[in-house]
Amino acid sequence: MMGDAVSHIVIDREEIATRLDEMAQFGRHPDGGMQRLVYTTAWQAAVDRYVRWLDEAGLQVRTDAVGNVFGVALGRESGPSIVTGSHIDTALRGGHFDGTLGVVAGYVAVRTLLRTFGPPPRTLETLAICDEEASRFHSNLWGSRAIVGLIEPGEAETIVDADGVSVADAMRACNLDPTHVGEAHRDDIGVFLELHIEQGPVLEDGHLPVGIVEAITALEEFECTVVGRADHAGGFPMDARRDPIIPTAEMVLEITRLARELGPPAVATIGRISAAPGAPNIVAATIRFTIDVRYPDPVAHRHLVERIQEACQTIAARHSVGFNMEQLASQPPTQSSPELIALMCRAADDLELPYLKMVSGAGHDTQVLARAGVQRAMIFVPSRDGRSHSPDEYTSLDDIVPGVRLLTETLYRLAYQ
Amino acid sequence: MMGDAVSHIVIDREEIATRLDEMAQFGRHPDGGMQRLVYTTAWQAAVDRYVRWLDEAGLQVRTDAVGNVFGVALGRESGPSIVTGSHIDTALRGGHFDGTLGVVAGYVAVRTLLRTFGPPPRTLETLAICDEEASRFHSNLWGSRAIVGLIEPGEAETIVDADGVSVADAMRACNLDPTHVGEAHRDDIGVFLELHIEQGPVLEDGHLPVGIVEAITALEEFECTVVGRADHAGGFPMDARRDPIIPTAEMVLEITRLARELGPPAVATIGRISAAPGAPNIVAATIRFTIDVRYPDPVAHRHLVERIQEACQTIAARHSVGFNMEQLASQPPTQSSPELIALMCRAADDLELPYLKMVSGAGHDTQVLARAGVQRAMIFVPSRDGRSHSPDEYTSLDDIVPGVRLLTETLYRLAYQ
Repeated sequence: MMGDAVSHIVIDREEIATRLDEMAQFGRHPDGGMQRLVYTTAWQAAVDRYVRWLDEAGLQVRTDAVGNVFGVALGRESGPSIVTGSHIDTALRGGHFDGTLGVVAGYVAVRTLLRTFGPPPRTLETLAICDEEASRFHSNLWGSRAIVGLIEPGEAETIVDADGVSVADAMRACNLDPTHVGEAHRDDIGVFLELHIEQGPVLEDGHLPVGIVEAITALEEFECTVVGRADHAGGFPMDARRDPIIPTAEMVLEITRLARELGPPAVATIGRISAAPGAPNIVAATIRFTIDVRYPDPVAHRHLVERIQEACQTIAARHSVGFNMEQLASQPPTQSSPELIALMCRAADDLELPYLKMVSGAGHDTQVLARAGVQRAMIFVPSRDGRSHSPDEYTSLDDIVPGVRLLTETLYRLAYQ
Repeated sequence: MMGDAVSHIVIDREEIATRLDEMAQFGRHPDGGMQRLVYTTAWQAAVDRYVRWLDEAGLQVRTDAVGNVFGVALGRESGPSIVTGSHIDTALRGGHFDGTLGVVAGYVAVRTLLRTFGPPPRTLETLAICDEEASRFHSNLWGSRAIVGLIEPGEAETIVDADGVSVADAMRACNLDPTHVGEAHRDDIGVFLELHIEQGPVLEDGHLPVGIVEAITALEEFECTVVGRADHAGGFPMDARRDPIIPTAEMVLEITRLARELGPPAVATIGRISAAPGAPNIVAATIRFTIDVRYPDPVAHRHLVERIQEACQTIAARHSVGFNMEQLASQPPTQSSPELIALMCRAADDLELPYLKMVSGAGHDTQVLARAGVQRAMIFVPSRDGRSHSPDEYTSLDDIVPGVRLLTETLYRLAYQ
């Protein structure tokens, strides 16, 4: 026991700033923002720089079969590892913080602990996950799935990018052997802690420095089709039409009303909509739109989805149009580990850090590690105006340091106490 | 004076059927329906066949500089011509009746008169207009604009089809000289009468054999942009969003409600809608949609457009989103010539044909000829289920003959009485 860590740990603000600046070199988008897609030269350069950091910190570098990089501080005791990090890839024309901040924060936290307290009793690891955004390939949390052994045979060969390059070929270009993907599987990770920007305005609006993520929300995505009849926009009286835009408008209002009625953190989003044939002078034959519905409690989530579906069907029937709702995606909720949340809340209290226990509305690698039974939790830091997946992402050092402090303190309690 | 024509004129049903069948050979779409685009080989074949019909009927063939074909029965008296016909091109994957029926009806009517009564006192002409649908080029009533001298210098060179072929090159491929477009201009047309399918369900629903078109509606088309803010569909609470889909839905309902409130024949159509960036898991930054508003009375039309604009602005302000409404097209209303309408109504009464005086919600070549001061009117015949611009267009011979009878009788009274 090293005693109360709270007073001992000093977070090096300048190191955080420097590391973020270094990563900002790799994948600058010509129009602003960052675009660092997995298995590209920008990505490779960022990974190489991360490896150099690990060397500087005296961490043992372990690159796995898909290109995830671990920096290992071996513990004196045997037992599962305590891992922290995030993903090193970015969204298409994303920002400087989504993913990257968690990579930097994990590195700075572990390095700070090693500097301050020396080698840990329990093995501590930093992690840069190769691909979370799926912004190059429809690869669906590729890096973390590799870690927990959830990649199906043949995936590397069949998933291709917009230019038709397969994951396997892209891996080979980075000197990774796609036939070895299975070897990335680890079953010795005990804890995964990820620091991430919030991707919403809740912390900023509440003037709170950190969020402790109790759960990642359940998500279902649907594509809806409203089928009316194409008619001449001049020749057809309003009452003789079966125009799908009118019931669609009613559905949009009802879907969003139902999500509001359930209350935060329930959200329902219609992010895509189109009309066919799509001419100004033709009444649409069909309208297609997507619904994205999220809520952390699976029963209430399912109930919300059912109410949305019933409401849409009722509206469609009233307007004599067809209605179909097809599921595009479904993600069960992920609860964080209660004992870890409790430990983090005590640590935040001891650090006199105000915090919000909150739900992540966005998906993260953490949910994949949860599927393998890894103890997990996340720390959110504010993101200005809630920006994410955007060149406008910004979190000041003042807003970063408290999160890194909580991360470091939590890792200290897990690895050293 | 030939006396009362009503009892003398016999319409040859079989000739109508045969001529429609002939035209159906030229431009069959492989998936059904017709696609006969101006200055294509299918179009040229249809024009050639039309010329052969004119020869058979003893009409003098006059092909103008853009490929409009007139079949002239010279009158004994000098004076402006009485012209009837429609366009010989079709919509993209259109039907057998839109345009074609008016070409056939005009031909059969004039031939019937020549057979029954011999050469007319006043010059009578049939007409096949080369291009009305603008389905190959954005050529905006090209054929009729040529007739009234409304084609701008350089248009033939600058307007191109989807393959980049200019109108001028397409004309040359049909042995037409684009430098002579101006020579198509005529100022000796006194009357233009066009028979056309209704493109709506009003006649069919009312069990009425013919419509006498008093006016072609005023039309304005707009593109609206509703500007909100792109947010993460998971990270952003409903109340923190500026989601443009919600005000857009309210606008759609209000726009259509206002058109209904004014009552038939007012129509408002939202035929195109899209969201950007358009991903299921991103709150839209902007929604774009079109509005097509039509009403025959220009003052009431303008008032409806203004009410729509005000309503949209109010909704946008309430939701703190931006709103912009840009005019894409504007067409003043075209009144038919009152004396011609009166003559047609008397003719219909004498023929004991029930008719509806109605407004065309669709645009037609007639409105272009009106701009040159030509006396004009249209006859509508029912179209099953109001179909048009569709392979499903269908009008039975039983529903065609009364319209052709009224056309023939009207032409008789104009050219012979």
